Amino acid sequence: MPRYRLLIEYDGTAFVGWQRQENGASVQGALQRAVKLFCDEDAEVTGAGRTDAGVHATGQVAHLDLERAVPADKLRDAVNFHLRPAPVVVVEAAEAAADFHARFSAERRHYRYRILNRRSPPVLERGRVWWVPKPLDAEAMHGAAQMLVGRHDFSSFRAAQCQAKSPVKTLDALTVRRDGEAIVVETTARSFLHNQVRAMTGSLKLVGEGRWTAADLAAARDALDRQAAGPNAPPEGLYLTRVDYP
Amino acid sequence: MPRYRLLIEYDGTAFVGWQRQENGASVQGALQRAVKLFCDEDAEVTGAGRTDAGVHATGQVAHLDLERAVPADKLRDAVNFHLRPAPVVVVEAAEAAADFHARFSAERRHYRYRILNRRSPPVLERGRVWWVPKPLDAEAMHGAAQMLVGRHDFSSFRAAQCQAKSPVKTLDALTVRRDGEAIVVETTARSFLHNQVRAMTGSLKLVGEGRWTAADLAAARDALDRQAAGPNAPPEGLYLTRVDYP
Repeated sequence: MPRYRLLIEYDGTAFVGWQRQENGASVQGALQRAVKLFCDEDAEVTGAGRTDAGVHATGQVAHLDLERAVPADKLRDAVNFHLRPAPVVVVEAAEAAADFHARFSAERRHYRYRILNRRSPPVLERGRVWWVPKPLDAEAMHGAAQMLVGRHDFSSFRAAQCQAKSPVKTLDALTVRRDGEAIVVETTARSFLHNQVRAMTGSLKLVGEGRWTAADLAAARDALDRQAAGPNAPPEGLYLTRVDYP
Repeated sequence: MPRYRLLIEYDGTAFVGWQRQENGASVQGALQRAVKLFCDEDAEVTGAGRTDAGVHATGQVAHLDLERAVPADKLRDAVNFHLRPAPVVVVEAAEAAADFHARFSAERRHYRYRILNRRSPPVLERGRVWWVPKPLDAEAMHGAAQMLVGRHDFSSFRAAQCQAKSPVKTLDALTVRRDGEAIVVETTARSFLHNQVRAMTGSLKLVGEGRWTAADLAAARDALDRQAAGPNAPPEGLYLTRVDYP
């Protein structure tokens, strides 16, 4: 039973998230339906990261097993054909080892968060960024962000419905830089808690506004209480950009 | 009668173009209506470049005169408020000299054309790029593009309905580079003929595919016949990015 690895891009706006749910269209559901239309198989498509409603991906990775082997390029093109007009595409498809698992084999996940930091609302990037009209200090945000790098209990940045066994995670990197009118937050870890990137970004915004210092962010981290940190940044600025495997 | 200069961004998808027309919503019309709603004046908003239906702008410039002076920042914010939900925003507004004219004072116009050059269709950039699935040779395109730089009769790259007095224009720059999965074409001139950038880009695509050489492009230029050049690239990849003034 051949296994395939897919690199997937999607616009999360119209979806309830990656994972199949009762209450609306999911990215996983769209992919599984396209596979069914192509080869009449009920394959499960397993993703590396279960992104929330509204969150985008340029580098989601998934795997699936098919009963009958097909060339990987044909799988990619056929699934893309049947996905239309849903805003999801398979960018690459390749045959994978039988023990490759998109979720459990992943060594590192990379997310990017884009803030449009200008007085005027977004137009060309509508639904692709968080609009923050007041000027943010990207350098201060970057400095404070270093308080979160390393091994910590991230309970202050964890959604109530998070299913992870432990709130202790190791954050490999969290950087903030200005790119013209945008503020770009990038972060890397083996895995993240539910809403962790959005909760960290929402807290960093408080630093960027001058309402919080780096010490305030460290105190929020040490409080081990979701109420101590800032509100979640909205989903539309968040992108799963890459997943690394051995 | 104070004059204002506006820097404007828009998503051209939903518009018949910059200029007010009978058959649909224009960017100019959206701006004039927003000004009217703000201060009840029937000001004419004059743009630097009359972009076609579907063409975007990140750096369109326009001017308007008001009977009653208002702070420029207030004009920007109020017009943006009344523009919603139309995909147009005023990024900057400033008071301008009485003899400033967005169209006639312009010394140079800059356009960018984005091609998504990968097998899979666009998702996050849907409506923002021209999708060309076959691999393009950006270096060959750049080399050939130099055949069009300088002072030439651009009749081969001119729409039938072009209203310019002369087809002779001086192209200051035309560059092509690869940026990951994108091919970026950038060009600068004092002014362009109607559809010139799209006709040049459509011809450069033939070079990128290996169907045309640089010599073929030069021959198309010298034919002085629109039929000799390639078809227009579609509008959704084109952006007016900047206008320079003295």
